[in-house]
Amino acid sequence: MMKYDVIIIGAGPAGLSAAIYSARSGLKTAVFERGLIGGQINVTEEVENYPGFPEALSGYELTERMHRQAEHFGTEFKDEEVTALGMEGLCKIVETSDNKYRARAVIFCTGAYPRRLNVPGEEKFTGRGVSYCATCDGALYRDKIVAVIGGGDSAIEEGIFLTHFAKKVVVIHRRDELRAQKIIQERAFKNPKMEFVWNSVVQEIRGENKVQELEVYNRKTNTVSVIPVDGVFIYVGILPNNKLMESRIDLDSAGFALTDDFMHTNVPGVYAAGDIRKKVLRQVVTATSDGAIAGWSAEKWITENYDAIQL
Amino acid sequence: MMKYDVIIIGAGPAGLSAAIYSARSGLKTAVFERGLIGGQINVTEEVENYPGFPEALSGYELTERMHRQAEHFGTEFKDEEVTALGMEGLCKIVETSDNKYRARAVIFCTGAYPRRLNVPGEEKFTGRGVSYCATCDGALYRDKIVAVIGGGDSAIEEGIFLTHFAKKVVVIHRRDELRAQKIIQERAFKNPKMEFVWNSVVQEIRGENKVQELEVYNRKTNTVSVIPVDGVFIYVGILPNNKLMESRIDLDSAGFALTDDFMHTNVPGVYAAGDIRKKVLRQVVTATSDGAIAGWSAEKWITENYDAIQL
Repeated sequence: MMKYDVIIIGAGPAGLSAAIYSARSGLKTAVFERGLIGGQINVTEEVENYPGFPEALSGYELTERMHRQAEHFGTEFKDEEVTALGMEGLCKIVETSDNKYRARAVIFCTGAYPRRLNVPGEEKFTGRGVSYCATCDGALYRDKIVAVIGGGDSAIEEGIFLTHFAKKVVVIHRRDELRAQKIIQERAFKNPKMEFVWNSVVQEIRGENKVQELEVYNRKTNTVSVIPVDGVFIYVGILPNNKLMESRIDLDSAGFALTDDFMHTNVPGVYAAGDIRKKVLRQVVTATSDGAIAGWSAEKWITENYDAIQL
Repeated sequence: MMKYDVIIIGAGPAGLSAAIYSARSGLKTAVFERGLIGGQINVTEEVENYPGFPEALSGYELTERMHRQAEHFGTEFKDEEVTALGMEGLCKIVETSDNKYRARAVIFCTGAYPRRLNVPGEEKFTGRGVSYCATCDGALYRDKIVAVIGGGDSAIEEGIFLTHFAKKVVVIHRRDELRAQKIIQERAFKNPKMEFVWNSVVQEIRGENKVQELEVYNRKTNTVSVIPVDGVFIYVGILPNNKLMESRIDLDSAGFALTDDFMHTNVPGVYAAGDIRKKVLRQVVTATSDGAIAGWSAEKWITENYDAIQL
C-alpha cells in the first residue's frame, strides 16, 4: 500500500499552498484531485486582487503557477477520486476509486461552490455578466446596472458594496422582506442607488455575448417583466464539498468544517483549509494562507506524534 | 485637514494587501510608511514559498509588485512617520511628524521583528547564513551543519524541522535546560541529528562571504570554543512594533494585537493585520491574507456605521 506523510484532498489554491508548505518541509506529500487542478478559481478570467500580480492574470494561470511550485518541491499529483477516509489509530486510510493509501496527516481542501439558480443563461454567462462574488468582480461594473439575487446578509452587504461602482443596483428577492440584519437593511433602504423588486424570481438570463437582461416572474401577481442589466450577482447560498467529512469531522450548521487557528479539525492529524472551512472571507489569498498554515501545522503535529503513528 | 476612508500604517505585505482590497473596493485609502515599502521581507533574497511564484523572487521584487498593484487601484503612499493615534467619536485622528489626518478606519500593519543577539557578524551575515526563520530558509541547508540559538518552543521545534534538511543541528542555549514543552524536548533529545551545547552564548559569527563558524562562550566553565557551521538560526524572541497601540488596543502578554477573525481590534473601526497580530504562523502569505480580510472588513464596518462617523 502506498504511504505518504501528508495527503491533501483537493487541488485548488488551498490544496496547492498546503502542498508547497508540506513538500518543501521535507514531507512526502500527495494531492488528490479528480477534476481540474486549480479548483473553482480556474474559471475566473481575471484575478486582479491576489497580492503580487499588478497585471491581472487568469485563475487558470495563477493556479498553474502554484501547481508548478508544488511539483517543484516534490508533490505528487493523483488523478483519483477519494471515496472514503478511515482511521487506524492515528494513521489515516485514504480510499480512492482505484487504490488505498496510508498517511500520517490529511488536509481537506475540497472547497465549496455557490448555489446556482439553475435558470437558462446562468451557466452560459458565468464570467460574462453572471458572478457569485462582488468582492472579486464588482470593480468591473463601474457606472453599469447590476442585479443582486437574494435577501440574506451576503446579498444585501454585497449589494451595498456594488453601489461603490454601479450606477444602479436592483435587488431581486423571492419574498416581501429581507432576511439580512436590520442595520444592513436600513443602510440598503437609504441608499439612493438601490432598488428592490419583491416577491420575484429570475426565470431567464439573456443577452448576446454577455448579460443584457433578466426575465423576472412575480410570484404574487403572476406577471413577467424584463429588467435590463449589465451584470447579475447571485447570492442564494454557498455549499460545502463535505461528503467525505460528515462521519467524523465537526461541521457548522451549514456544513463547513470547524477548525482552530492551526486549521486542525476535531480529529487528530486531520486539517481543513480554504473554502471548506467556516471562515469570514473566501478569496484566493485567504485560501492559500489557510493551506500554508495547515501544511506547516501538519509538519509540527507529525513531528510531535511520530512514534505513535503506525504508518 | 486631509481625510481618508482608510488609513493603513505600515507598507509590508499585510499593509499592501489591505490597501489593494480597500482601494479596489472604492474607498479613499492611504498607506503611511516612513521606511522602505515592503517591510521586513524586503531584505530576503529569495522567497520561494509565496504561492504563485514557482521561480523564486526577491522579497523586494515581490513587495514592489504588491506596491504597484495597490497604486493601480488608487492607494496613496505617504512617507511620514505616524506619531499618534487619537479618536473623536468614531473618527480616527492620525498624527504624523508633519500633518494631521482624519480617517473612518485605521489598519495597523506595523509588523514585528526578531530579537537580535547583537553580536559581531550577525547583521553582516543576515541573509548569508544568519536567519530568523527556518520555515523560510531551512530548505537551503540540505546536508549542511546549522546552529540554532535559543531554548524555547520555537527554537526547538524549528531545530527539529531543520533536521529534515541539515546533516547536523547544534542547539546552543544559555541555560542548562530547555524552556520548550516536554514533548518537544523529548523528540529533540531522541533525534540523532541534534546536538546540544549548554550554558553557552554566541560571541561572534564569523566567515568570509558567508557564515563559517561561531565563537561560543561557556558561562559555567568560562571557556571559549569555535563551532564550524554553514548557517545559524536565531530564535531568541520576536518583538512587536506596537508603540502606537499601547494606550488603546488590547495586546497579549508579549505585546501583539488581539483581533477577532475579522482582524478587528477592541476599538471600533481599528484593525490589525500581519505580524503585529497574535497569530500562529508569520509568513508573507498569512500577512497578505490578514491584510485582505482587514481591508474587506473595514469596508463593511464603514458601510454599517457611515452616518455615525463624523469625518
